[in-house]
Amino acid sequence: MNGAESLVKTLVENGIDVCFSNPGTSEMHFVAALDSEPRMRGVLCMFEGVCSGAADGYARIAGKPASTLLHLGSGLSNASANLHNAKKGNVPIVNIIGDHALRHHQYETPLRSDIKTLAAPVSHWVHAAPNAEGMSDDVAAAITAAGKRKIASLILPADVSWSDNADEGIKIAKLEPLPIANDNTIDEAHSKLTNGKKTVILVGGTITASLSQQLSQIAAATGAKICAETFPTRMYRGAGSGVLEKLPYLAEQAIAYLAEYQQIILLGANPPIAFFAYPGVPSELQAAGTDIISLAAPDHDVEATVVNLMKKMGDLPEPNCFPDQKLPLAEGELNSFTVCQSLANLLPDNAIIVDEGATSSLPLYPMTQTSAPHDWLTLTGGAIGFGLPCAVGAAVAAPDRKVVCLEGDGSAMYTIQALWTMAKENLDVCVIVFNNAKYNILELEFARTGAPGGKPGKKAGAMFDIGNPSVDFVSVAKSYGIYGVRCDSAESFNNALKEALAHKGPRVIEAMVPPFQLTP
Amino acid sequence: MNGAESLVKTLVENGIDVCFSNPGTSEMHFVAALDSEPRMRGVLCMFEGVCSGAADGYARIAGKPASTLLHLGSGLSNASANLHNAKKGNVPIVNIIGDHALRHHQYETPLRSDIKTLAAPVSHWVHAAPNAEGMSDDVAAAITAAGKRKIASLILPADVSWSDNADEGIKIAKLEPLPIANDNTIDEAHSKLTNGKKTVILVGGTITASLSQQLSQIAAATGAKICAETFPTRMYRGAGSGVLEKLPYLAEQAIAYLAEYQQIILLGANPPIAFFAYPGVPSELQAAGTDIISLAAPDHDVEATVVNLMKKMGDLPEPNCFPDQKLPLAEGELNSFTVCQSLANLLPDNAIIVDEGATSSLPLYPMTQTSAPHDWLTLTGGAIGFGLPCAVGAAVAAPDRKVVCLEGDGSAMYTIQALWTMAKENLDVCVIVFNNAKYNILELEFARTGAPGGKPGKKAGAMFDIGNPSVDFVSVAKSYGIYGVRCDSAESFNNALKEALAHKGPRVIEAMVPPFQLTP
Repeated sequence: MNGAESLVKTLVENGIDVCFSNPGTSEMHFVAALDSEPRMRGVLCMFEGVCSGAADGYARIAGKPASTLLHLGSGLSNASANLHNAKKGNVPIVNIIGDHALRHHQYETPLRSDIKTLAAPVSHWVHAAPNAEGMSDDVAAAITAAGKRKIASLILPADVSWSDNADEGIKIAKLEPLPIANDNTIDEAHSKLTNGKKTVILVGGTITASLSQQLSQIAAATGAKICAETFPTRMYRGAGSGVLEKLPYLAEQAIAYLAEYQQIILLGANPPIAFFAYPGVPSELQAAGTDIISLAAPDHDVEATVVNLMKKMGDLPEPNCFPDQKLPLAEGELNSFTVCQSLANLLPDNAIIVDEGATSSLPLYPMTQTSAPHDWLTLTGGAIGFGLPCAVGAAVAAPDRKVVCLEGDGSAMYTIQALWTMAKENLDVCVIVFNNAKYNILELEFARTGAPGGKPGKKAGAMFDIGNPSVDFVSVAKSYGIYGVRCDSAESFNNALKEALAHKGPRVIEAMVPPFQLTP
Repeated sequence: MNGAESLVKTLVENGIDVCFSNPGTSEMHFVAALDSEPRMRGVLCMFEGVCSGAADGYARIAGKPASTLLHLGSGLSNASANLHNAKKGNVPIVNIIGDHALRHHQYETPLRSDIKTLAAPVSHWVHAAPNAEGMSDDVAAAITAAGKRKIASLILPADVSWSDNADEGIKIAKLEPLPIANDNTIDEAHSKLTNGKKTVILVGGTITASLSQQLSQIAAATGAKICAETFPTRMYRGAGSGVLEKLPYLAEQAIAYLAEYQQIILLGANPPIAFFAYPGVPSELQAAGTDIISLAAPDHDVEATVVNLMKKMGDLPEPNCFPDQKLPLAEGELNSFTVCQSLANLLPDNAIIVDEGATSSLPLYPMTQTSAPHDWLTLTGGAIGFGLPCAVGAAVAAPDRKVVCLEGDGSAMYTIQALWTMAKENLDVCVIVFNNAKYNILELEFARTGAPGGKPGKKAGAMFDIGNPSVDFVSVAKSYGIYGVRCDSAESFNNALKEALAHKGPRVIEAMVPPFQLTP
């Protein structure tokens, strides 16, 4: 058995049976090994940022890691923005990064680079496999690392891959349980919840149906407010989900929101900090003197921690859940609000929403609060280009669920190649692109950062103008063999959306909308 | 003056008046500063890999650096593959990488990352500006570093950018001359050239008209062979360029080529090493016992070194140049050979060829040896996705020259967003995409790496198949507002190419070709 075969076998024996791949010459033995292992599914992507974003989306939905196959340091670089997003979201991924043969490392060659250094900022665990013999051990160690909701990057030199002396024994990773809050911490949280002070539980990461329901019970019993972080990794929402709020994105609004609380209990969330710094606006969003404790860190077992907390609390009221109460279909002008309203109406049961719609999809969150139950995936690391790849991965993980991916015209462009993989794999994804011909969020942020003049002049404004030419997303879809339709009224959008949701496979809907205004 | 204004002013006072930009919120003051400095041209790109690749192409043609504007660590990550290429090609770039405000660094936020570590592998010089006051000094230091044909990365915290206490004095970078070979080294090279042993001068980096002509004189005087490295940064070619050969890409062929030489003199080139390692094939391409000396390193002044060498050599024969001898237009079947033959015929005077055609454009190099004079830009670092962005930069640098960019269907996809900037800036680029519906080079390499079976099986083969669906490049062009045409005969290609070359502005020609075979 060669190193590559041992690698692939160890992955599948440990339940990692999808590899989002963009191979090159140094990875040919890994590619060959796919033929020897029927259980491994190779999903080809035309850009490495699609591989990593897809692995992120896959793991969020499958609850277990996928692998990526990347071509040396440059392939890793292309994957890094979406690895960053996954890392921030505590999403596990096992990267296989091909490298030159060990004997080739000493030479200056075009593709030689410092892969370990490149990998470090976007990984929790980095290891270069030194030989084929120990390959299965190395892969098992990577999987163990990833099992802690981490990014594991295994560097695979070509000669390690092709050497025929891999150990025949396949190792099984020893997955450790995620940490659970200890009794003292739970007692402290419990006492805070019952000391009469105004308290918000800021919950982040993966918020399951049961977690949101349980938190709603705690809220009912204690008067605490439940609030999700602005960009949770995965959030069960809609009818039947436990009632909670969401921390606003805009720092001023978040500060106003948190001002009324004396205590913040962090549950799988980091302390509330402004997304960006602004002149004259504090970075810390809570009021001065607010008491903050962490009940569970983002890489802890939040659900088990909450179960233990509930045991301390004794009998609790019934969950307080959002009702099933759909907004009517929108009519008339097509804009961010009418698009979101119609989607809130038509959203199928158990859909997965991937939200990278920036300003344009802002109305969707409140509007879908009482829609059909669904999962909501957000941009956890702020690196644009996550949405379409994430939708690829989510659809691979859950072929029986409809994925709805919301994109801005600007954000869609970063990893547009994901559409090709949707077509190749016939993934059930409905992509809705808001085409407003602007980097609208930057226009919004320009004034907020206190940039001189408040409004961009001609040259600065040109940096936000993507309307000359405006991207034609029907042609974009056609490029990759996907049917796309352009809509410029609520009625045409409603029809296109109904048709896309009834269709099994990828579709693109281009919604021609005016730039989003904070008030409609 | 705020930090951003000082930054932009220092750039333009030092002759850096183009910024390939993909800004975000943390860069808003830099964007605002564009309005205050009419000499700085901001060129918006829809993906950061376009920014860095464009800066590469710009510097190769303009002979001076451009700047990039990148959004924090993730923007840098997206730019890194093309920074890697530029670094390998010894092409100067000044990166401006926005970052959170200094006071914001202490907090865990979605976009926080270790920018210095991310920048290190793709930069020669990395510095985080600590305050606005010293901004002009920091920028001048970056420009000084870049002046040595290096990548300089200046990290710009948002509050440094917006602070109003920048020094009013604008600093001018002290550019040091590039190193020239000393007398001893020149004497050693001279004695090798005249000791009667078989010698090849391996020349790399930027090969100007005069350099190729001078080298042809040295060859005529000494019997040495002049050979360009496989992937030079910029090479003057065609009628009137000095006669030289090129080291083959395939390791076996390169080994055979070099086998007959006893001495190798490196001139702006690294020692000849196989692009990839292969089982049973040595990494070093020269024969055992070959004597290798370096006359000038890639970041040295190769031209001045050669002038000094020529002074030692006394009277030399006239340059030996390629004649003006165009191939006829091709007829009949459209394939890699007929596409290249017709382009060799029609190539306009003083064109710039950007070659990322992988297997499909292999015939073009020999066929254009006697075409109209032109510059040839290659993929110096092996990271795919360089071509279209490089063409953007070359066209910005030389608006009066026709840029012809050759792409494979696979390679075009990595940074396809570059087409939008071509349209927005109305750049005079003719893009020729060879659509063979394959990662053909990987199919070729599969067998060469000794992968089991020699030929890919069904699952491995699927990793090279980009024909299901095949990308439709006429629609791709239309997506970005560019006219594209699909050709499936030599005659239709000839017509499309004539029309594209007569047109001033971007065009896409999709050449439907069979996979390249090593023999036609």
